[in-house]
Amino acid sequence: MDLKSTIRSIPDFPKPGILFRDISTLLKDGAAFSCVIDRLAQRYPADSLDAIAGIESRGFIFGAALAAKQGMGFIPIRKPGKLPAKTVSAQYSLEYGTDTIEMHVDAVSPGMRVLLIDDLLATGGTMRAACELVEKTGGIVAECCFIIELADLKGREALAGKTIFSLLTY
Amino acid sequence: MDLKSTIRSIPDFPKPGILFRDISTLLKDGAAFSCVIDRLAQRYPADSLDAIAGIESRGFIFGAALAAKQGMGFIPIRKPGKLPAKTVSAQYSLEYGTDTIEMHVDAVSPGMRVLLIDDLLATGGTMRAACELVEKTGGIVAECCFIIELADLKGREALAGKTIFSLLTY
Repeated sequence: MDLKSTIRSIPDFPKPGILFRDISTLLKDGAAFSCVIDRLAQRYPADSLDAIAGIESRGFIFGAALAAKQGMGFIPIRKPGKLPAKTVSAQYSLEYGTDTIEMHVDAVSPGMRVLLIDDLLATGGTMRAACELVEKTGGIVAECCFIIELADLKGREALAGKTIFSLLTY
Repeated sequence: MDLKSTIRSIPDFPKPGILFRDISTLLKDGAAFSCVIDRLAQRYPADSLDAIAGIESRGFIFGAALAAKQGMGFIPIRKPGKLPAKTVSAQYSLEYGTDTIEMHVDAVSPGMRVLLIDDLLATGGTMRAACELVEKTGGIVAECCFIIELADLKGREALAGKTIFSLLTY
């Protein structure tokens, strides 16, 4: 299936000069969305991982669907102040300033193999922070998985040392 | 399976006096998360619906997992400014002030039967706004589905006229 044909490109969003790859048109196409999850399920058999963590919010969509399909646990990595129990946190750089993501400290046990999923690899900052969260709790980042990689932005360099998989590259 | 035993209760979150029902402990239990999605899949056979819409962010987790399992399309209902194409919006009341949610205007076609999913039925305001979004685009709200209903908060009254299903009630 030609998944790229289901992704819409929107110029100048969220700001001028940016060509936004809109996955909402993929998601609303049931065959395309299932195709994505099936391909990820082939790559990540249930016995190859202990849990799947998704990064808020679009990472929740793909991570949770894959986890449910594989009968695996799902771990939400969220923006600050959203998770109710004790958390670990990690910062990443924005164009101006920094932002933070959090994970429950008891979500990952030492030695757990955790797949990290987000929809988009751009500069890689958010995913690098997500790797820190898993490693702070003693977990092992099995792989960093993306639906779309924007190769020009060199996110792979920010994630040097990690195994990276992206389903589609622009 | 006793799903309630996998949900953690956290006092005084997000503010004093509130007992927060934390589904992250359900999600990280692969058997419990799969059980939730299996029960929803039994209730909503693929031929009974045309799409599943989830409300950001925790509604994404359950809605996307169910949509992928059923081979159906998934529609994200998001906070303002997140969706890149033309949207419809609806407001709902908070304790102080109002908030807004948005959906792509082309996500739903007239006559489409849309299942709306969120994790929690509290006062029902967000879900009522989500119903408005679907109806503004000519869609039909097939049902409003929740994982947890807090019966004391009378969200069913705010959703009068809609069919409501909740998996667990407190």
